[in-house]
Amino acid sequence: MPLPTDAVLAHADSDLDGSLGRLFDFLRIPSISTDPAYKDECRRAAQWAADRLAECGFKAEVRPTTGHPMVVAHHDGAGPDAPHVLYYGHYDVQPPDPLDLWNTGPFEPVLVDGPHGKRIVARGAVDDKGQVMMFFEAFRAWHATHGNLPCRVTVFLEGEEECGSPSLVPFLEANKDELGQADVAVVCDTGMWDVETPAITTMLRGMAYTEVKLTGPSRDLHSGLYGGSALNPINALAKILGDLTDDQGRIQLPGFYDGIPERSMEQKAEWESLGFDETAFLADVGLSSSSGEAQRSALERLWARPTADINGIWGGYTGPGSKTVIASEAFAKVSFRLVTGQDPDRVVQAFQRFCDERAPAGAKVAVSDLHGAPAMEVPLDLPQLQAARAALADEFGRPAVTVGSGGSIPVVEKMKRILGLDSVLMGFGLNDDQIHSPNEKFEQVCFHHGLRSNARLLAKLAES
Amino acid sequence: MPLPTDAVLAHADSDLDGSLGRLFDFLRIPSISTDPAYKDECRRAAQWAADRLAECGFKAEVRPTTGHPMVVAHHDGAGPDAPHVLYYGHYDVQPPDPLDLWNTGPFEPVLVDGPHGKRIVARGAVDDKGQVMMFFEAFRAWHATHGNLPCRVTVFLEGEEECGSPSLVPFLEANKDELGQADVAVVCDTGMWDVETPAITTMLRGMAYTEVKLTGPSRDLHSGLYGGSALNPINALAKILGDLTDDQGRIQLPGFYDGIPERSMEQKAEWESLGFDETAFLADVGLSSSSGEAQRSALERLWARPTADINGIWGGYTGPGSKTVIASEAFAKVSFRLVTGQDPDRVVQAFQRFCDERAPAGAKVAVSDLHGAPAMEVPLDLPQLQAARAALADEFGRPAVTVGSGGSIPVVEKMKRILGLDSVLMGFGLNDDQIHSPNEKFEQVCFHHGLRSNARLLAKLAES
Repeated sequence: MPLPTDAVLAHADSDLDGSLGRLFDFLRIPSISTDPAYKDECRRAAQWAADRLAECGFKAEVRPTTGHPMVVAHHDGAGPDAPHVLYYGHYDVQPPDPLDLWNTGPFEPVLVDGPHGKRIVARGAVDDKGQVMMFFEAFRAWHATHGNLPCRVTVFLEGEEECGSPSLVPFLEANKDELGQADVAVVCDTGMWDVETPAITTMLRGMAYTEVKLTGPSRDLHSGLYGGSALNPINALAKILGDLTDDQGRIQLPGFYDGIPERSMEQKAEWESLGFDETAFLADVGLSSSSGEAQRSALERLWARPTADINGIWGGYTGPGSKTVIASEAFAKVSFRLVTGQDPDRVVQAFQRFCDERAPAGAKVAVSDLHGAPAMEVPLDLPQLQAARAALADEFGRPAVTVGSGGSIPVVEKMKRILGLDSVLMGFGLNDDQIHSPNEKFEQVCFHHGLRSNARLLAKLAES
Repeated sequence: MPLPTDAVLAHADSDLDGSLGRLFDFLRIPSISTDPAYKDECRRAAQWAADRLAECGFKAEVRPTTGHPMVVAHHDGAGPDAPHVLYYGHYDVQPPDPLDLWNTGPFEPVLVDGPHGKRIVARGAVDDKGQVMMFFEAFRAWHATHGNLPCRVTVFLEGEEECGSPSLVPFLEANKDELGQADVAVVCDTGMWDVETPAITTMLRGMAYTEVKLTGPSRDLHSGLYGGSALNPINALAKILGDLTDDQGRIQLPGFYDGIPERSMEQKAEWESLGFDETAFLADVGLSSSSGEAQRSALERLWARPTADINGIWGGYTGPGSKTVIASEAFAKVSFRLVTGQDPDRVVQAFQRFCDERAPAGAKVAVSDLHGAPAMEVPLDLPQLQAARAALADEFGRPAVTVGSGGSIPVVEKMKRILGLDSVLMGFGLNDDQIHSPNEKFEQVCFHHGLRSNARLLAKLAES
């Protein structure tokens, strides 16, 4: 006897072009959340998403915040006793800069040929519009085939994921009774192990993102008249930030590593068994050797060890030609990826202390906390994690691997803390998708598998 | 019997308002040489200067170069046997940024009250239009009073002093027979010891100005997915540039101090006797303590020791908010003030080596040489230096002090090397004139003294 899921998958396969067309419509909206100039586009993307959910039987709303709006939608067709899953995603995207490195317009999605068949190229192709559309289209296939979904489903999309989610916590707190009714969250913003091997992410690094301002003289000075006597803020900032790591790649903030658990031999052996090829991973981005902490495996460094990256730096004269100036101020954006055992607030405080201890006489250093979130680990015995494993095994004919992610998904920690929900992180990106970079892409085959896997997951959750 | 100079000085005094009016006209021309948008304004400033000289009996020309034009003017009224002096100045100015820190428009000169009486406020007030107009107006007073000048005079103005003088060497080489006929050069681009004490500058630091580009990954990367494995070019650049000096302020380039003579005890004692108040010098720009090499006096650090200043730095995301990016490239402008014994080319090579030695695997560092000049010292027994001493002693009623300058005036070295001319550096700026900064000013009393001193100098040179 055919299972209900079979008809859903058949429908999804036959309507793949329709799904891609709708994804392209979504990708054409330049919903860049960090740039105020794109405020209306963010709102348009939210409304577009709500309209698509309404087409699949959801009661869908765009709800205002002090920043970009949220999308909240409910489908209760499975009845009050059915399992209830909350799907999270985000409709906003990173800025497309530098524009001149794109082969096609970042908001003019195209299909181009690649080693795994067609690939979708656009800003947001995989982060996160493509992954959002996988579950939207899974709902659409269930709705078209059976007129209903097998579980109760809540969809929650934010529009500020790429700019630190300033409205997320207030919104979750204000709506925790409504959103917290779900049994579990499914977060679609992660990756596969490789194009043939699905993955479930159970470790996420956290984040402490700061801006540093170092102030020296009260005005810009002539470097000839003052050089050798006056403090140079850029020299001072370079010296401080140059101290961030020692020659073993160990981060030098006081107490930075306190409380971080050493991973078990079993855990390290499991990572080893994945056969991650760091040389190829880096060669793909033009690098010939690895950086970071000495004597740690690549996967441990990427998933279970913290980082200190300067994301931006500026000060003084940066135009063409030369200007013999000692600037009054120098700036940097410095972020720390955090792991279990680290507290974002304490890291920011330690960074301020680190800067203060190294600031030369006459320099003032102010560290601003732009946003932060602790690392998260998802319990391996979560029943819904087993449902996801089963769905992925059926779809791919091989078991999913359990991985970590170097990137932060702060919403996972916030949904746990505020809504009481664990998250199943099941995503379909690949390492070479160039997220946050020019020519971001999403393999069509991954989109298709992701759509089908979500259709299967709804049935598995209904059984659980 | 009244000396010819007395009438000249009386005329200069009575026409001071006229002199200031002409200076204001000059200051209203935004001749910013480093910015191609102001090319026409530079040409206009050159023509304006030539026209003023023609009014005083000069045969004056604006001569094209591949960059901004030169002004060359000759006055041969004193006859073929008279001493022949070449006056050098520059008609171009620094960019006025940051504009919002100016109290009045940078190109709308005003007189404002200050502790020494009126002061002239505008970009170029003292660097160098005000100092150029001192000798222009001295010529005008001689011309008006006696219909002639007491010496043969050549004027040579460039329009690229603030952007590295790219046309200067080719122009001097092409015109060395014409310009090299003078006996000595007078350069008006330096300062006084204080508002009551004139100074003659005999030591000038040189310059090696570079731009550094550090390249890492072939594209911008997501700091979550790659942080802990991929090289971060900004971290790497900060680490390299943070090493520029040790904790004693000693510059760490290989061989950097080789060949620099240790100054004599007499020289150091003379500097000590000047009673320079570094605390006040720095307090004036909001700094509470001195930077630079340990165990060196302030004047030695400012005049006779080299520096390494980062004049600008940039890379990664520098806009509002946060972007979790590992940039592909990072940049800095780094300049070295040089002293006797150092060669600019060798310093640039040493800096490239310094960067290469510290570049982590996968980083490429390219150091570009933007411009350079060795340090210069003027012989203390130069006869024309004695003439300048006499003119200044007459004007101020006290002897001039002999000083160094931390700033580079590369033309001094070039006029020596190409034209065979020594330079007398007699200038009237003060330390707090804020050159290259917002609200640049020139004390009216200094302008007036400078005008009169130049009128006296012409007579003293005629006698020498």
